[in-house]
Amino acid sequence: MATSIPRGVTAPEGFLACGVHCGIKPAALDLALIVSSGTDRPATAAALFTTNLVKAAPVLVSSEHLAASSGLARAVLINSGCANACTGQDGMIAARDSAATAAFALDIPAEQVLIASTGVIGVALDARKISAGVAEAAGALSRDAHLDAARAIMTTDRGPKEAAVEDQIHGQTFRVGGMAKGAGMIEPNMATMLAVVTSDVSIEPALLHRALKAAADETFNAITIDGDTSTNDTVFALASGASGVTIGPGELPAFQAALTAVCRELAVAIVRGGEGVTRTVSIHVTGAASPDAAKRVAKTVANSLLVKTAVHGADPNWGRILAAAGRAGVPFQLDDVSIRIGPVVLFAEGRPYDERASQAADVLARSEVEIGITLGRGSGQAVVYTCDLSAEYVRINGEYRT
Amino acid sequence: MATSIPRGVTAPEGFLACGVHCGIKPAALDLALIVSSGTDRPATAAALFTTNLVKAAPVLVSSEHLAASSGLARAVLINSGCANACTGQDGMIAARDSAATAAFALDIPAEQVLIASTGVIGVALDARKISAGVAEAAGALSRDAHLDAARAIMTTDRGPKEAAVEDQIHGQTFRVGGMAKGAGMIEPNMATMLAVVTSDVSIEPALLHRALKAAADETFNAITIDGDTSTNDTVFALASGASGVTIGPGELPAFQAALTAVCRELAVAIVRGGEGVTRTVSIHVTGAASPDAAKRVAKTVANSLLVKTAVHGADPNWGRILAAAGRAGVPFQLDDVSIRIGPVVLFAEGRPYDERASQAADVLARSEVEIGITLGRGSGQAVVYTCDLSAEYVRINGEYRT
Repeated sequence: MATSIPRGVTAPEGFLACGVHCGIKPAALDLALIVSSGTDRPATAAALFTTNLVKAAPVLVSSEHLAASSGLARAVLINSGCANACTGQDGMIAARDSAATAAFALDIPAEQVLIASTGVIGVALDARKISAGVAEAAGALSRDAHLDAARAIMTTDRGPKEAAVEDQIHGQTFRVGGMAKGAGMIEPNMATMLAVVTSDVSIEPALLHRALKAAADETFNAITIDGDTSTNDTVFALASGASGVTIGPGELPAFQAALTAVCRELAVAIVRGGEGVTRTVSIHVTGAASPDAAKRVAKTVANSLLVKTAVHGADPNWGRILAAAGRAGVPFQLDDVSIRIGPVVLFAEGRPYDERASQAADVLARSEVEIGITLGRGSGQAVVYTCDLSAEYVRINGEYRT
Repeated sequence: MATSIPRGVTAPEGFLACGVHCGIKPAALDLALIVSSGTDRPATAAALFTTNLVKAAPVLVSSEHLAASSGLARAVLINSGCANACTGQDGMIAARDSAATAAFALDIPAEQVLIASTGVIGVALDARKISAGVAEAAGALSRDAHLDAARAIMTTDRGPKEAAVEDQIHGQTFRVGGMAKGAGMIEPNMATMLAVVTSDVSIEPALLHRALKAAADETFNAITIDGDTSTNDTVFALASGASGVTIGPGELPAFQAALTAVCRELAVAIVRGGEGVTRTVSIHVTGAASPDAAKRVAKTVANSLLVKTAVHGADPNWGRILAAAGRAGVPFQLDDVSIRIGPVVLFAEGRPYDERASQAADVLARSEVEIGITLGRGSGQAVVYTCDLSAEYVRINGEYRT
C-alpha cells in the first residue's frame, strides 16, 4: 500500500526542479524546469498528449523529441501565460528554440528536452523571454523548489497541485511524485491540463508508457469539467532509476498502483479547482456490458448540464440522471436500472422512490458527492469525476477578453 | 415561394383545435386537442420520436397506434404538467386510457389517436383528469382556438410558438401549419420538445414520413440548447387532404420546402425561448467532407460550454471555436480552416486576425449571431441553431425542486 510523502515532482530520488519568472506573465512565476540529474543516464520518459486535432506547437515538438530519443529525457520545460497554439510556423520555431535553449543550458541533446505551454491561444511564444528564464532556472534547480515549479505552471488555478507516494518492491523503497495544473480559467483559453509525474524506479520506456496510459485512463481521462478538450493537454512521466528498484512485468502491479494513486490525487485536485466549482461529484457506473459502456454512460451523465446544475442546486433529480444515461448510446432495460445519490436509492426496478428526496438532498448538499448508476447488463464499471455547474462558471468564462 | 399566413395548426383546411384546463396544472391550460375533421377519411400521419433509450409511455403508445393504423390519425391529444415518463406499468395504462377517452369522445378508433405528454418525470398521469378534460375539449374544438392549443402544451415556455405558410402546386393552394413547445424549464425535467405540424395536402403516409424526417433533420434536429435529449420528444405531422392538392414524388419539393419552412420557424422559436437565452446563434459549417461531418462539427461547437459562455459575454474567442471543432472527431488541416463571426474573419490560412476582435465583438453583441466555419475538405455543409449560456440558465436549472 502506497503511503503519502512530502514534496511533489522531486519526491523521487534523482530529480531537481524550480520555477522562475521569465516575463510572459506580468508578475508571477511562469517557467518551470524539472531535471533528471541523479544518474549518468537520462530518465525513461513517456507522454500522453491531447486528442484534439488542433495540437499546439509544444505538443508537436515534444512528440518529435520522444520519438527521436526513443523514450529518454533529461528535462521538462513548461511555461504558463502563452499556449503557443494556432500560431503556425512562428510558433513551431519558438517551441524548438525553447527546447534548444534548455538543452544548451543543461548541456544535453535537444531531443532530451520535453516542453509544454499553457495560456492564451493564438499568441506566439516569445523565445527570448524563455531563453533568459532558462538561464536563470538552470542555476536555481534544487530538490526543495518543487512548489515553485508547481506554481509556475498555474494559469488561474486556485493553488498548486502536488502529490507523492512511496512504496516498497522486494523490500526496496521507490517513490512516485507529480504536479499538475487544471482549468482555472478566469482568462479565456486556459483550460489546459498539464501534469508531470516522476519516479525513481528503473523501467523501460514502453512499459512506462503502458503504465502511464493505464493510470491516465482511470484518472486524468476520467475527469470532466465542461467536456471541452484543450489543444495543449499533456501528461509527462519520467523515471530516473535512482532508487535502484527495477520494474519488470512482475513488479508492474505495485508500480502501477503507486502511479495511479498519484495521478488520481492530481486529477481530483484539478476537478476541485475547476472554475466556479462548489462541489465535486464522482459518477460510479456498474453493471454495464463493458468498461467502455460504463465509461460512456458515466461521461454522458457527468457532462449533462441539467445534471450539473441539479447537483449545484442540491436537487436530487434522478430523472435528469436517467435521461442523460438514456442518450449515452448504451443499451439497457429501464426495469434493471437503479440510481442512487450517496447511499440513497431514488429509482429501482422501474419505479421512483420520491419519498427519499429530502434525504438525498441532504447528501447532495455536501462538498463531495457520489452518484451511483447500476445498469444490470454485465460486470463493466467505471468512475468519472466531475463537478457542479455554477453561475460563477458562466461569469468567469463569459467575461470579455481584454 | 411559401408565404406566411395567420393561425398555426388550423391554418390548413380540415383541422380544428382547442386548449382546455383539466387540472394537471394548478391554473393554466394543460390539455390540447387537435382534430382532423374536414374530410370523411382520417388524416395521413407521421411521427418522429425521441432517440433517448428511456421513452415515456405516450411515446410508446403513439408509436403502437401509428403502426396499428398504418399511418392514419384523426386526433392528437397533448397534456402538459406531467411527462408520464419512468412511470412503469401504471403510466402505460394511464396513457392508453387517455387515448381511449379521446377516441370515445370523438367516436373514432383508439389507434387513430396520437398522444404526447410533457412535464415532470416520474409522476404517473391522472387519467381521470384527462378524461374530464377531453369531454370539455371535444365540445370546444374550433378553427380559431389554435392559440389555446399552442398555449396548452407549454410548460414554462415564455410564450406559445406557432407558424404557418401557404404555397401553390399546379395552381392550387395548399397550407402547412404548426405549433411547438421548447425547453422553457424553470421547473426541472420539462425539457421536452413537442411539435405538431398539419397540412391540407393529400399524401401517402410513407412519403409524409420521409418529408417530415428530412424537414426535422434540418430544423428540430439541428437545434441544441444544452445537448440533453428528453424522454418525451415528439413531432407529429398530419395531412388532411382537404385542399385537394395531392403530393406525389413530382410535387414533393414544393411541399418539402413549405414543411421545412414551418419546422424551421418553430425550431428557431424554441431556441429563442430557451432558458436564460440572451442571444441565438447559428453555426454554419461548410467545406466538410460530408454533410454528417459538417453537422458533427457544428453540434460540437454549438454544445461547447466555452463557446456558449463566450457568446454570452460577446467575446470573439475564435480559439474556443477552433478547439471545439478540433475535438469533433472530424479530420481537417489547420491551414485550410477559416472562422468568422458574422462577416468578420478571425482565423484563416493558419493565422489569427486578432486586430479585428473589436469589430467581431460588435457583431457578437447582437441578439442573433452567425458563426461560420470552413474546413476546406469538400462540399459538405450544415447549419445548427443554438443559444448562449447565461448565469440565468444555471439559476433556473439549479433551483431546488419543490
